[in-house]
Amino acid sequence: MARTDFSRMRCPIARSMEVLGERWAILVLREAFYGTTRFDDFSRNLGIASNILSARLGKLVDNGVLQRVPAATGGRHEYRLTEKGRDFFPAYLALKRWGDRWMGNPEGPVTVLVEADTGREITSPPLLDSAGAPLELDRVRILPGPGAGPAMRQRFGDKA
Amino acid sequence: MARTDFSRMRCPIARSMEVLGERWAILVLREAFYGTTRFDDFSRNLGIASNILSARLGKLVDNGVLQRVPAATGGRHEYRLTEKGRDFFPAYLALKRWGDRWMGNPEGPVTVLVEADTGREITSPPLLDSAGAPLELDRVRILPGPGAGPAMRQRFGDKA
Repeated sequence: MARTDFSRMRCPIARSMEVLGERWAILVLREAFYGTTRFDDFSRNLGIASNILSARLGKLVDNGVLQRVPAATGGRHEYRLTEKGRDFFPAYLALKRWGDRWMGNPEGPVTVLVEADTGREITSPPLLDSAGAPLELDRVRILPGPGAGPAMRQRFGDKA
Repeated sequence: MARTDFSRMRCPIARSMEVLGERWAILVLREAFYGTTRFDDFSRNLGIASNILSARLGKLVDNGVLQRVPAATGGRHEYRLTEKGRDFFPAYLALKRWGDRWMGNPEGPVTVLVEADTGREITSPPLLDSAGAPLELDRVRILPGPGAGPAMRQRFGDKA
């Protein structure tokens, strides 16, 4: 069966998954957030085969999440986060919070992120409702947005 | 080459990706957040082949993200979010925010999430530093956490 082309789907989450929905892609991004820029360092830190790493880095570059720049200190080029890539950091933190809580090690998190100048721990902020209490999922309602097609408008529109 | 077993990796993000790092898994979760519970509704709303959907639902059940419960109104069973699954909602929202911003449609988001009682839009909260300003990535420092092994302690520990 042909592989579904997620990049043509209307849902931006689906299109995001076309870029990120591969197990290694998010770990390559994790490494970039850890400050890794060189192919050999990605390869060593991730324990990933060169051909797979090369494909993942290439796809992230093609999609504007990373950019390939000349190496600052000789050698090969480096991979730097673009604005689009840096803007994924809150989503990475939210995934890390979930992973640490539900898929974590009994001893606790492997890494802790802190503000360099204050030492304050950086964690994904909790979802609060308009009264400042934790937001409960059963109070969330889905509405069609401005980019909704007819099917989504029918699905989530007012039936009144 | 053998497929790397992410579930044995120490990093909880890697273990999370073993469950979620497949393009369909996150869309199945999206549907669950939209209120979908029945196999046929997942199948129709996602346009996914039955065998793939069945495998994805089974993996999410095996990993405690969804649970299979007897259907409330006859017919087959339903798939309900567990606490672990519901707790993924902030990460889903953070992914949605990034997708809408960087992979979105020119007309705007396909769906908008609001608080049912107030109509207030629900979005992923921004990352702020301790002074309340947007957190800049270059001010983030990575430290080894309590679950860090020797390699991570060496990598991120104080070299002083």
